[in-house]
Amino acid sequence: MRIDLNSDLGEGFGPWAMGDDAAMLDVVSTANIACGFHAGDPDIMRGTVRLAKEKSVAVGAHPGYRDLIGFGRRRLPGISISEVETLVAYQVGALAAVSALEGHPMTHVKTHGALGNVCADDDAMALAVVRAIKAVDPKLAFMVMPGTATARAAENLGLTAINEIYADRTYADTFNLTPRSEPGSVIHDPKMLVKRVMAMVSEGRIISTSGKTLSVPIDSVCVHGDTPGAVEMAKTLRMGLEKAGWTIGSGLPKA
Amino acid sequence: MRIDLNSDLGEGFGPWAMGDDAAMLDVVSTANIACGFHAGDPDIMRGTVRLAKEKSVAVGAHPGYRDLIGFGRRRLPGISISEVETLVAYQVGALAAVSALEGHPMTHVKTHGALGNVCADDDAMALAVVRAIKAVDPKLAFMVMPGTATARAAENLGLTAINEIYADRTYADTFNLTPRSEPGSVIHDPKMLVKRVMAMVSEGRIISTSGKTLSVPIDSVCVHGDTPGAVEMAKTLRMGLEKAGWTIGSGLPKA
Amino acid sequence: MRIDLNSDLGEGFGPWAMGDDAAMLDVVSTANIACGFHAGDPDIMRGTVRLAKEKSVAVGAHPGYRDLIGFGRRRLPGISISEVETLVAYQVGALAAVSALEGHPMTHVKTHGALGNVCADDDAMALAVVRAIKAVDPKLAFMVMPGTATARAAENLGLTAINEIYADRTYADTFNLTPRSEPGSVIHDPKMLVKRVMAMVSEGRIISTSGKTLSVPIDSVCVHGDTPGAVEMAKTLRMGLEKAGWTIGSGLPKA
Amino acid sequence: MRIDLNSDLGEGFGPWAMGDDAAMLDVVSTANIACGFHAGDPDIMRGTVRLAKEKSVAVGAHPGYRDLIGFGRRRLPGISISEVETLVAYQVGALAAVSALEGHPMTHVKTHGALGNVCADDDAMALAVVRAIKAVDPKLAFMVMPGTATARAAENLGLTAINEIYADRTYADTFNLTPRSEPGSVIHDPKMLVKRVMAMVSEGRIISTSGKTLSVPIDSVCVHGDTPGAVEMAKTLRMGLEKAGWTIGSGLPKA
Repeated sequence: MRIDLNSDLGEGFGPWAMGDDAAMLDVVSTANIACGFHAGDPDIMRGTVRLAKEKSVAVGAHPGYRDLIGFGRRRLPGISISEVETLVAYQVGALAAVSALEGHPMTHVKTHGALGNVCADDDAMALAVVRAIKAVDPKLAFMVMPGTATARAAENLGLTAINEIYADRTYADTFNLTPRSEPGSVIHDPKMLVKRVMAMVSEGRIISTSGKTLSVPIDSVCVHGDTPGAVEMAKTLRMGLEKAGWTIGSGLPKA
Repeated sequence: MRIDLNSDLGEGFGPWAMGDDAAMLDVVSTANIACGFHAGDPDIMRGTVRLAKEKSVAVGAHPGYRDLIGFGRRRLPGISISEVETLVAYQVGALAAVSALEGHPMTHVKTHGALGNVCADDDAMALAVVRAIKAVDPKLAFMVMPGTATARAAENLGLTAINEIYADRTYADTFNLTPRSEPGSVIHDPKMLVKRVMAMVSEGRIISTSGKTLSVPIDSVCVHGDTPGAVEMAKTLRMGLEKAGWTIGSGLPKA
Repeated sequence: MRIDLNSDLGEGFGPWAMGDDAAMLDVVSTANIACGFHAGDPDIMRGTVRLAKEKSVAVGAHPGYRDLIGFGRRRLPGISISEVETLVAYQVGALAAVSALEGHPMTHVKTHGALGNVCADDDAMALAVVRAIKAVDPKLAFMVMPGTATARAAENLGLTAINEIYADRTYADTFNLTPRSEPGSVIHDPKMLVKRVMAMVSEGRIISTSGKTLSVPIDSVCVHGDTPGAVEMAKTLRMGLEKAGWTIGSGLPKA
Repeated sequence: MRIDLNSDLGEGFGPWAMGDDAAMLDVVSTANIACGFHAGDPDIMRGTVRLAKEKSVAVGAHPGYRDLIGFGRRRLPGISISEVETLVAYQVGALAAVSALEGHPMTHVKTHGALGNVCADDDAMALAVVRAIKAVDPKLAFMVMPGTATARAAENLGLTAINEIYADRTYADTFNLTPRSEPGSVIHDPKMLVKRVMAMVSEGRIISTSGKTLSVPIDSVCVHGDTPGAVEMAKTLRMGLEKAGWTIGSGLPKA
């Protein structure tokens, strides 16, 4: 009964911060670090890795589209499969180097924002991401959304998968996330959030808004770090999980 | 009698090109590829690696300061040793990944512009660059300026050095380049250029503008690719070297 | 019988040039100057205005989406009407100031790339552009595509319109341009290009690829400056027009 | 007895915020708005102008060097007088347009960060700024540091000056600010801060750290908005000034 808590961190840029990374690193067991395209810069990446190492938190790359002003949330048009492969390789390679500098090697990759949404629906795009990860290091894991193209791509190309659910988001019947623009797609009530996560984790299944279910072992739960009350929400979830007998720890498969 | 010809390539950005990379890749044996901070972007990096592979040209990373508008030629103030270490690791890691995607692994690193000028004069900065390179891969070589801090850093930290001279630049008594702003610092006459290179390469010594000399085995000659007539100049030099009995080939030490 | 020739110029960025602006400024009577969002930077803007003034060429702002890497040609998703209004005002205001510095005040505005395509089809977006222009100076003209939303917006809000046709592009039945991705959408043959322009200008009508026609007085012909042979093509067109009795001059309405 | 309180606002970028602009706009009478080069973007500029209008706060442009990652605080090397003129004109023109869109025309210009430090010391640079402002609108005021090159430039070229002091910074004998890197250069104690400001404002003189004094009518006091406790500090200062009989209002000369 071990479960990972992951959060997207290092999402500042230059003089600007986003969220309270130090506080979140006290709660989660895995940090997905922005790599400079939608957020983050080399110094922020390195500082986040250093802090994660101090707190024994695993680190991974969190590549996104090149879209600082849109925070990687816009589905940029006209980006080819080859371009996705290249931009993911670039960002993963960059974090691999920066984490090596700190003596805290990265363990995995998770796609950010619109890139993640696209890859969950599009097998060719998801395969491009996996090829990019393998070009850097075939021992890296890929944090995937069970039931989607990202999970299939990891399986097909032999990359370790970390099955992830989102604590504060609802699921479409494709088991991709419902769009943020839809009402109710983001869960703000801490009690409901904890209850939902506990149900999904203990039963090993994801439930869509229409009631469709997917049975799947869940390795990691994503908690967002950049919303008001984010840290409190994450702490509440962690306490709930621990009280129910779960140990919080890295989402990497139990070797 | 083998000598490398290297050039700084992949220096476009998005829709903009700089120089005729395809033509230069027919002349040189090594390409130093911009990594997105002063020039270059992931797609240009990948395209340049692919073309280099087709033409059996070695590729390396050419990291610079984050300064697109200044093309990395401005000595940005207030950049710490740790920041240099980080920005070099980031860029080298990125090219390592992109070159791996193309199945044409990078062989070396060369610093660009103002970063290079600073590192030639400042031992602590040059050591930071070498630490960053080693974090990515300790088997990578460092293309250095003999007699300067870059050469000392490679030697002190056990990185393979590629001793480089510049075909079209003159040398100060420190054996760093004379600044571009000084009259006569850039050599435009092809005949004089070829003659100078032949002398330095065959005698194994660099001569400063005041006549100071440094005896050193020279592995590689840098030819610039972004000036009018650059390709013709490089071809002329290559023919001159070949006529004098030199074989053109990668600057990596003869194992 | 006066007709304007306009071209999109100042499309470099930092160390990168695009096209041969000096040569084009010898051929055209109006320059549309990129304002830093998809291309251009303040120094390039100013240099282009200065050169235009020397050659008695009218200057206008050529605002685009914030998308350097995509050169403003991607239809960025999620950009609201208010955001278009703001980004156009920003860029037009910037060129107004830079052209005032050179004592060569701007005369007009023309939208670039994807922003232009969107505004030709979407009345609300085109009206936003016109409101932005009027906020800077209600005496500025708007270079529009006859028969589209840009022309309607200028008329509805009382801005002077400059009716423009494209020398090297074909038209859909909406009298918006056919997408570049469609075969045959860009005309490369100089003879056909000159013939088409002469027909449209002398008959005062635009013909779509399906044969639909729009009768409209044409004030200006756009010649592109960034393709191989662009300058020669533009010279050929100018000579053809002059031979047929047209005087080349600014597209501003004959007061 | 009227005095202005000004603050540098709109210093976010894309998804990132800096400081609590809404709260500061309840305290100050003038907002200096970042124009996209060191911070800010068109939408943030517009939102800040709108909020300022609602709260009857005057707005001005706050141009800086093109240096997002360094927040405009680095003295970028090699920037010519002409380049300063151009980058200031660009940014002032952009805000003029955006503020016109909101029907709340800008009133003044204040230089940011390193650009401001350079202009306080360098008459040629300060004159370039004033020429740029006049190119946009000669009726705009220039917020200057009394006793420095900015004040001289406004006077020499006939631009209205707003004499400004900094609430939380100490002065060198040149009456430029002491560098942030010097210990004691930033005042954090609210009581001392209020006392200092009251002394300077009521006596009409600025005192350097060595005791040198400059007698000058003071129009405006700058309060910083991006430090912890900034809003409270500003409120404390405002209450102190009001208690002493000052009316808080725009720094424009009492016509």
